Amino acid sequence: MRTVLVIGIGAGDPEHLTLQAVGALQRADVVFVIDKGDAKDDLLALRTEILDRHRSDGGYRLVTAPEVDRDRGPEVAGDDAAYRDVVVDWQDRRAQLYRDMLAGELADGGTGAFLVWGDPSLYDGTLRLLERVLDGAPGEWRLESVAGISSVAALAAAHRLILNRVGRPVLITTGRRIAEGMPDGVDDVVVMLDGRTAFTALPPEQRAELHVYWGAYLGTPDELLVAGPLDEVADDILRVRAEARGRKGWIMDTYLLRRGAEER
Amino acid sequence: MRTVLVIGIGAGDPEHLTLQAVGALQRADVVFVIDKGDAKDDLLALRTEILDRHRSDGGYRLVTAPEVDRDRGPEVAGDDAAYRDVVVDWQDRRAQLYRDMLAGELADGGTGAFLVWGDPSLYDGTLRLLERVLDGAPGEWRLESVAGISSVAALAAAHRLILNRVGRPVLITTGRRIAEGMPDGVDDVVVMLDGRTAFTALPPEQRAELHVYWGAYLGTPDELLVAGPLDEVADDILRVRAEARGRKGWIMDTYLLRRGAEER
Ligand SMILES: C[S@@+](CC[C@H](N)C(=O)[O-])C[C@H]1O[C@@H](n2cnc3c(N)ncnc32)[C@H](O)[C@@H]1O
Ligand SMILES: C[S@@+](CC[C@H](N)C(=O)[O-])C[C@H]1O[C@@H](n2cnc3c(N)ncnc32)[C@H](O)[C@@H]1O
Repeated sequence: MRTVLVIGIGAGDPEHLTLQAVGALQRADVVFVIDKGDAKDDLLALRTEILDRHRSDGGYRLVTAPEVDRDRGPEVAGDDAAYRDVVVDWQDRRAQLYRDMLAGELADGGTGAFLVWGDPSLYDGTLRLLERVLDGAPGEWRLESVAGISSVAALAAAHRLILNRVGRPVLITTGRRIAEGMPDGVDDVVVMLDGRTAFTALPPEQRAELHVYWGAYLGTPDELLVAGPLDEVADDILRVRAEARGRKGWIMDTYLLRRGAEER
Repeated sequence: MRTVLVIGIGAGDPEHLTLQAVGALQRADVVFVIDKGDAKDDLLALRTEILDRHRSDGGYRLVTAPEVDRDRGPEVAGDDAAYRDVVVDWQDRRAQLYRDMLAGELADGGTGAFLVWGDPSLYDGTLRLLERVLDGAPGEWRLESVAGISSVAALAAAHRLILNRVGRPVLITTGRRIAEGMPDGVDDVVVMLDGRTAFTALPPEQRAELHVYWGAYLGTPDELLVAGPLDEVADDILRVRAEARGRKGWIMDTYLLRRGAEER
């Protein structure tokens, strides 16, 4: 029997690790890390800090592999079908990478850990990939998911927000989707994976009734927060965002759009 | 200056506490606890376990107050407007309780902590109440929110779920809302606050295309999980749920409804 742990490590703050995640890390014989490349050195830094702090025993093996390349064209072009194809193909090639790593590096009786940004249940493909890889793999495998603080929870805490209003829903969606307009029937929308500040694409009459609560590099020393009526602060966000992105070479941001913010 | 911390303690598993939450607990001079009554002894037990484990120094004061009563009529009747009124009135009376507790129990320079179930940002009124109470309060106050693992994250981890499909949204809503039918444009819906197994109210053609991933008492030794096509497992859930509720006197459950579960 081999055990594979998918451990949510939080979205930037090493203090967001749960006690369960610390325990899971400490059970790992092998830690698998997918290296996203130079631009996201900060992400690697968080992983390293967490491992140094909670596995100072050094009694584990670190296996790193470079992230599989992905065509960003259709995403930038906003082509829905092509985007899905690209993601699916990318997942296929990642599955092969994971298959090879697990077969080559994890001995029988061993426990391997994948460290996942934020919570494994939000816009992360690791569980899906592993489920698929382990399904066909020879031998007996156990897969476990360890919950983490997501960037959504980190955004809410930073702004001291309650995401829903009393008895009302909240939607978590992507920049690509929100660029098509605020959905009907839901007045609180969290936007992730937004490379193009999609709120600028909303029609003026929608923008006028929205508040935004924006956060970048949440939980890190570089954390940036802007909040207010969208029409008043949109330019601030664009400026702050462009400046930070230029300086650091990459950005990760998340925001809540709230219709009728004066209501509870 | 007085500091008030709203600390998410997870939805049942003491191991879901974050390192940040442990640190916050350890800074508290006063811990405020709202006692929900006998039926929910388990909730009290989690708080007690957490305090015993992380504050064995005993260097804090525990202040408990009974939960303010609330009229459950409109909620059971499904009367939307009346439900909101009841909640608003209840929040008013809770605000008075919090005002009195803070004024009476927290000295200048002190740090008080409210322990909140799950994550403070999901269907919990504590931050809203405190924001309001501290707004008018004499003296200087600082309010902080400490993110916790929500029951949504706990549900996902227990079922090893990714809540969203590739590039698609996920809605978090209430039992009362989902009883009106699956929303358009979103195929992954997490349902909370469902006292009446609202999925039974869905029209047959909607039920037929849904998978359900259900969890009760998540993260506790009593955890119950059921998953499968809704039409096949709905009766199991009803039976398991009624039995558990009868035995324990209360239940907390959450579930994901997923349309077209075969798609990624
Ligand atoms: C591929 S998703 C992974 C989400 C992750 N599993 C989670 O639970 O937060 C990446 C997106 O998460 C958001 N994100 C992750 N970390 C963030 C951070 N520290 N600050 C702001 N947004 C973040 C951004 O919207 C980013 O585009
Ligand atoms: C008032 S809300 C509080 C939610 C909490 N703030 C959170 O982050 O999970 C209570 C609802 O949360 C869900 N819930 C909380 N704890 C749960 C648990 N241990 N298992 C299943 N559902 C739970 C149920 O849907 C319940 O009706």
